[in-house]
Amino acid sequence: MTPSTASQRVKWNEQGLVPAIAQSAQSGKILMVAWMNREALEQTIQTGEAVYWSRSRKKLWHKGESSGHTQKVIELRTDCDFDVILLKVDQAGGIACHTGRESCFFRRNENGDWQDVEPVLKPPEEIYK
Amino acid sequence: MTPSTASQRVKWNEQGLVPAIAQSAQSGKILMVAWMNREALEQTIQTGEAVYWSRSRKKLWHKGESSGHTQKVIELRTDCDFDVILLKVDQAGGIACHTGRESCFFRRNENGDWQDVEPVLKPPEEIYK
Repeated sequence: MTPSTASQRVKWNEQGLVPAIAQSAQSGKILMVAWMNREALEQTIQTGEAVYWSRSRKKLWHKGESSGHTQKVIELRTDCDFDVILLKVDQAGGIACHTGRESCFFRRNENGDWQDVEPVLKPPEEIYK
Repeated sequence: MTPSTASQRVKWNEQGLVPAIAQSAQSGKILMVAWMNREALEQTIQTGEAVYWSRSRKKLWHKGESSGHTQKVIELRTDCDFDVILLKVDQAGGIACHTGRESCFFRRNENGDWQDVEPVLKPPEEIYK
């Protein structure tokens, strides 16, 4: 695949990665942060669905491949330094987090500790069968 | 300073850092992404204003110290993996980006390249005198 100008302009870090933020195109809620390498960005642009690089599994990760919770990309942005990607997405199933919550950012700072403040919409054991 | 439970639970990377996303508490717009080390998070919690770690200058960076564009923290969150911080902020001056734009995410993917799609609200030479 010929690399797009977009991916050539991104400033990949020493591991060849950049952070990628998925934001709900509807509510503006931040759903999750993952990482992309060049191939993940190219596939995201080509397919219109979020593809990340799994640092733990060391392979491309088409978000939703196990859970069905795919992310349709409505808009793709980068920042002033070209070192972060922002995806505005339609989140299939309304669940982005592997814990079964809408968003991974369910822990709020309260009195110097983190408290879980968002409901589990679907138990993980029902998502990953 | 005694480290807070919150900062002890964060999974700092091999450089002792995590990405930190500043989001407008009002509009939900993502304003910028920077990095925090433990001290930056502690100072952010203590002072109620965003403090980051500048990787280029290798020092703590009280956002707005030069520009006046400080960020009042309304809410502080972390994610399922404790490896990203989310700050919901009141952005002083309505400008987060050093380019004089509201948000650093002013480049939109169009036809395989990035196009600037957000206006400069104040020229940088008027911000940094």
